[in-house]
Amino acid sequence: MSQQTDPTLSPFFNPAGIAVIGASTTPAKLGFGVARNLVQSGYTGAIYFVNPRGGRLLERPIFAAVDDLPAPVDLALIIVPAPQVAQTLAAVGRRGIHAAIILSGGFRETGPAGAALEEECLRVAREHNIRLIGPNCIGLVNTHLPLDTTFLPPPGPPPGDVAFISHSGAICAAVIDWARGQGFGLSHLISLGNQIDVCETDTLAPLAADPHTKVITLYLEGIRDGRRFVRAARRVTRDKPIIALKVGRYSAGRRAVASHTGALAGQESAFNAAFRRAGVIRANTVEELFDWARALAWCPLPAGPDVAVLTNAGGPGVTAADALESHGLSLAMLSPATEAALRAVLPADASVRNPVDMLAAATAGQYVDSLRILLDDTAVHSVLVILPPPPMESAGGVARALIPIIFAAVKPVIIALMGERMIQEAVEYFRAARVPEYRFPERAAAALAVLTERAGRVRAAAGEVERRPPAGTRPAEARRVLDDFRTAGGDTADFLPFEIVSRLLDAYGIPTPQAALATTADQAVDLAWQMGFPVALKIASPDIIHKSEAGGVLLNLREPGEVADGFAAILNNVRTAAPQAPIDGVHVQRMVTTGQEVIIGAVRDPQFEAIVMFGSGGVEVEGLRDVEFSLAPLNEDEAQVLLARTWAGRRLDGFRNLPPADRAAVLDIICRLGQLAADLPELAEIELNPVRVLALGEGAFAVDARARLGA
Amino acid sequence: MSQQTDPTLSPFFNPAGIAVIGASTTPAKLGFGVARNLVQSGYTGAIYFVNPRGGRLLERPIFAAVDDLPAPVDLALIIVPAPQVAQTLAAVGRRGIHAAIILSGGFRETGPAGAALEEECLRVAREHNIRLIGPNCIGLVNTHLPLDTTFLPPPGPPPGDVAFISHSGAICAAVIDWARGQGFGLSHLISLGNQIDVCETDTLAPLAADPHTKVITLYLEGIRDGRRFVRAARRVTRDKPIIALKVGRYSAGRRAVASHTGALAGQESAFNAAFRRAGVIRANTVEELFDWARALAWCPLPAGPDVAVLTNAGGPGVTAADALESHGLSLAMLSPATEAALRAVLPADASVRNPVDMLAAATAGQYVDSLRILLDDTAVHSVLVILPPPPMESAGGVARALIPIIFAAVKPVIIALMGERMIQEAVEYFRAARVPEYRFPERAAAALAVLTERAGRVRAAAGEVERRPPAGTRPAEARRVLDDFRTAGGDTADFLPFEIVSRLLDAYGIPTPQAALATTADQAVDLAWQMGFPVALKIASPDIIHKSEAGGVLLNLREPGEVADGFAAILNNVRTAAPQAPIDGVHVQRMVTTGQEVIIGAVRDPQFEAIVMFGSGGVEVEGLRDVEFSLAPLNEDEAQVLLARTWAGRRLDGFRNLPPADRAAVLDIICRLGQLAADLPELAEIELNPVRVLALGEGAFAVDARARLGA
Repeated sequence: MSQQTDPTLSPFFNPAGIAVIGASTTPAKLGFGVARNLVQSGYTGAIYFVNPRGGRLLERPIFAAVDDLPAPVDLALIIVPAPQVAQTLAAVGRRGIHAAIILSGGFRETGPAGAALEEECLRVAREHNIRLIGPNCIGLVNTHLPLDTTFLPPPGPPPGDVAFISHSGAICAAVIDWARGQGFGLSHLISLGNQIDVCETDTLAPLAADPHTKVITLYLEGIRDGRRFVRAARRVTRDKPIIALKVGRYSAGRRAVASHTGALAGQESAFNAAFRRAGVIRANTVEELFDWARALAWCPLPAGPDVAVLTNAGGPGVTAADALESHGLSLAMLSPATEAALRAVLPADASVRNPVDMLAAATAGQYVDSLRILLDDTAVHSVLVILPPPPMESAGGVARALIPIIFAAVKPVIIALMGERMIQEAVEYFRAARVPEYRFPERAAAALAVLTERAGRVRAAAGEVERRPPAGTRPAEARRVLDDFRTAGGDTADFLPFEIVSRLLDAYGIPTPQAALATTADQAVDLAWQMGFPVALKIASPDIIHKSEAGGVLLNLREPGEVADGFAAILNNVRTAAPQAPIDGVHVQRMVTTGQEVIIGAVRDPQFEAIVMFGSGGVEVEGLRDVEFSLAPLNEDEAQVLLARTWAGRRLDGFRNLPPADRAAVLDIICRLGQLAADLPELAEIELNPVRVLALGEGAFAVDARARLGA
Repeated sequence: MSQQTDPTLSPFFNPAGIAVIGASTTPAKLGFGVARNLVQSGYTGAIYFVNPRGGRLLERPIFAAVDDLPAPVDLALIIVPAPQVAQTLAAVGRRGIHAAIILSGGFRETGPAGAALEEECLRVAREHNIRLIGPNCIGLVNTHLPLDTTFLPPPGPPPGDVAFISHSGAICAAVIDWARGQGFGLSHLISLGNQIDVCETDTLAPLAADPHTKVITLYLEGIRDGRRFVRAARRVTRDKPIIALKVGRYSAGRRAVASHTGALAGQESAFNAAFRRAGVIRANTVEELFDWARALAWCPLPAGPDVAVLTNAGGPGVTAADALESHGLSLAMLSPATEAALRAVLPADASVRNPVDMLAAATAGQYVDSLRILLDDTAVHSVLVILPPPPMESAGGVARALIPIIFAAVKPVIIALMGERMIQEAVEYFRAARVPEYRFPERAAAALAVLTERAGRVRAAAGEVERRPPAGTRPAEARRVLDDFRTAGGDTADFLPFEIVSRLLDAYGIPTPQAALATTADQAVDLAWQMGFPVALKIASPDIIHKSEAGGVLLNLREPGEVADGFAAILNNVRTAAPQAPIDGVHVQRMVTTGQEVIIGAVRDPQFEAIVMFGSGGVEVEGLRDVEFSLAPLNEDEAQVLLARTWAGRRLDGFRNLPPADRAAVLDIICRLGQLAADLPELAEIELNPVRVLALGEGAFAVDARARLGA
């Protein structure tokens, strides 16, 4: 389970001594704020202040230059004006300090001049082997070391078990304040700013190795090296949950990202595929990010999706049931023994079916007894307890009574507290005991769903199947096909000729409808009889790429006579259109006109490389949007997910009068196309549409295909 | 816009005097709580306590019997045990009191014996002309009168402008507490309990007429008379917004509703259609219900969907842009003049494009100037102001400076406050000024979207088109067809015979493919030539209902020979299968095999009566779920909504190589089928699938149709 951490990053996580360069005695300046926070944070290593003006600050001398600093120092905090940062870095490097956090702004975020300054900083840092966080960031807080390199007004975040990594500095102050108000703590807060060196991916392994961090939360505006992120995150999520909020989802959002940090926001489908592959849980709002982080940090994982709801009121029980179902969870079927046990402790009018409604007069003792009974039922994987302001007892009293049971439980128990002021005491008890509580049942249900999703990831991590190329793929041949095409001066801007695409598919064992060459009309008719009608005829000539335009294609020929006549017609057409072209004959191809229609495609995403798409095929792909994505390559389990998440995939099992189709053949093509896309980075896109899926055992065939090379 | 209110309900909203029957001197009893709340509420009318034990309570005498009460009393609050309620009601009626709230439980919610008690109460109430709220309810609170008939522990809700009507009593205490904590007030709170008489619909007109109520919020578990609700709500939403949270969405939820209040929860699609028709905004959670109520109560409506975002930090600006787009709103394109004006008041590095990022050092003055500039831009319909804990100024100071601008604005301004404790002062200022503020931008964006939806409803109300039967519908003929069928002993359990369905469609002018009777093979061939191939042949015999089974149907005949042979074959088949059946000939019917395929259907919902469905047709209707519903009958504008909300409808305009189809013909069939379903309540369902939609001007035809009568 050990995470490989990069030793050059260790000064950021456990510095031996810190220099604050640009420390200021003027309280309104950031250089004062950083010095103040660092000293007040309780950091126990050496702290040195640097400012050419000298003097004293917070009962310490201010050194005039970095060169003057005594040992040990291995981390520099830089808060000097942007134009002076590069020379400061050079001095830092000469002093033998190899890690720096540039808190100053005035770089890329301000325009081309700032971007040039940033480039210069990076150049100097590389020259001196300095790792950088920032510029234009808030720095970091480590509540357990402790350490606070930020200039944010105190108080900092309370210590806790959630690490927060942010591309946005502005959100950090709000998150710290939110954490304090909502009663959860942070282990680390890291603001990455413009990320000229250290990025979100670099922080994952160190946080995975940190015993104080139970959950890693990410606020992302984009990811530069998507595949590296996926590899690192996937390693981490075997052991520790990661939740990500990715902003810049929509076009307007993306525009705002571009003008704000210059980050290239990736396509949503690629991000969803990447997060799924990496086992990263995706939150949609800051509230969800931390709602879910608390549940993941504090609760055991449920063994399944079946939830018992314990309430003292019917209405909220119904709301909870709604919310659970909308998140894909179920109400557990309680055993007769459980119902009998509940009946013994509850009034006659109470409902002992799930949701269990103890009625308004429920006492703390009844809450306790009922919770214990529900936790004992093996059909119950988790419990959602709803606590409106109880008319008879204080909510605080009920909370106090419940906490020991929840502590002892090996199943998650989540609390929905309804109201605000009358439940405040209960809120405080639950928070102190690290029991997740939410206002109203809906948010509690969402948190339970995330625990269930996380349990799935942990199970999947245990059974992960290595991804291998499907049998019989011939990447070298495919590469040769493309190389030959380019060497021959083929047009790489347009879609590739059908022959080239066919040969690529052939090299990866992707079935296309049976085809064979006929040199005479009689031979064409014989082939058609062998394959079965209808057939298509296509001119075979190395010089004719746009066959239809040359009159070289006839489709849907249903009878021998049509085939014979068609053969002659094609030769005639082509000889007129391209008199000089050498003609090898005519390809006879079986027309596959039956079977279910699906689309299987792959595109190259700028952040996540090859991505495979599967879904409902035909011309209405964009209209129906019945598609799902995966990173490529993918194994059969991962391809199964694409089928499960689309109607096109589900209906392969048959639906009403639609018979079951050859699902296995579809999975095979998905895996093969994924391998092809991963092996051939020069392909910008390739699409099989439609793929016709015949009856069980009869296969699936790419009836049409197109592909395009990248720029 | 006066709302017709029912005078028999006025004692609930403005009682002249109140009797508390079952008032108790024992503080733990509900009968004490009700007496206490009523007295403490400040109600200025007469208050009388009744209890056979007599004595004094809260400095008032307790009367031994209802008969003893002095005038004026026109409302009774009943808190006696369930078995005594009916006789109490009789006494109340004899005393000339015609309104009562039965707070006692122990009725239908406890089983059949309780249900019988409830029936008896209703009988007595009807006998004495008593209107009833409850039983098994919390009663009502009217903060402006003031009046509090509940037994909930104080404090009650603060006075405000949101009315809350609830099917669940349990949620009421939580809502009161939530309102207090979240800083909004209620005008009315009405808990309806088992609704043996007064239901949610009855409360709408009185609340619409109440000057203190700006928004009506509903917590619904089901609606008994759906059409009455829609009519009443539609009337109200012309002037005043209604937001509804309908619980029991999912099957598990429905089960819980059934076991809780015995309410029949309607299908989600019917509820969505009904809320849309009524102009009711649907919330999904209690938080949304009141988030949105505050915005609707406190803000002017926006003239359009274009939002300006004002922030001092890029990250939250991006989040806001995401959230706005996800709700169908847009970032306003600021005018060059606006950008120039912003540039004049903001630092050089600030982004004056929308989202406007003033940078972290933004002052209260810059917030004020920028907001004023944005509000002056005619392209801006509303403004979302994001306020993280500002590093330089207190959030409270910014809030105080902004409030006068927001007050003066005729466009809505919504605040996203980020954080918790550091923004508390700002929260208090905004709440006191009735400016809606939300934590983080996502909830603020949702509230803006609801304001925009509401503005759409107000516009639509102004241009409402009266619903009239489409031209040439013949309901009397359709009725006669069904009557004749039943009189003739037709099987009403199974699907109706095709002839019957065809005659219904004909009576409503719904086009089916052209058909004509042939009595000879030659005549059949001639007809086929006239109609165009392919055609279908179907035996015409009054005695043969299941034509296919009798060998009486042949489809897709492509040539004259096939038609001639088919004619003979059909006669032969039928003479063998049903030798006694009189034969009129063979129907020749044009086969429509081209065109886009849609489904148009109607079902009878137990709560909302006839509902029309439109969407993608074929066999995969359930799989694709590309369908939308509307109440029937509907006018063309309402049918347009069905097309706009489905891919099947949007693609009628053409898509890629799919040519545009005859959209007008589809709208016409939807309206006709809606009228048919509304006119013939005995139809449980009728479905045209597929309807084939030909090219512009060529019409649409119901190729297949089935219908079933109700039980």
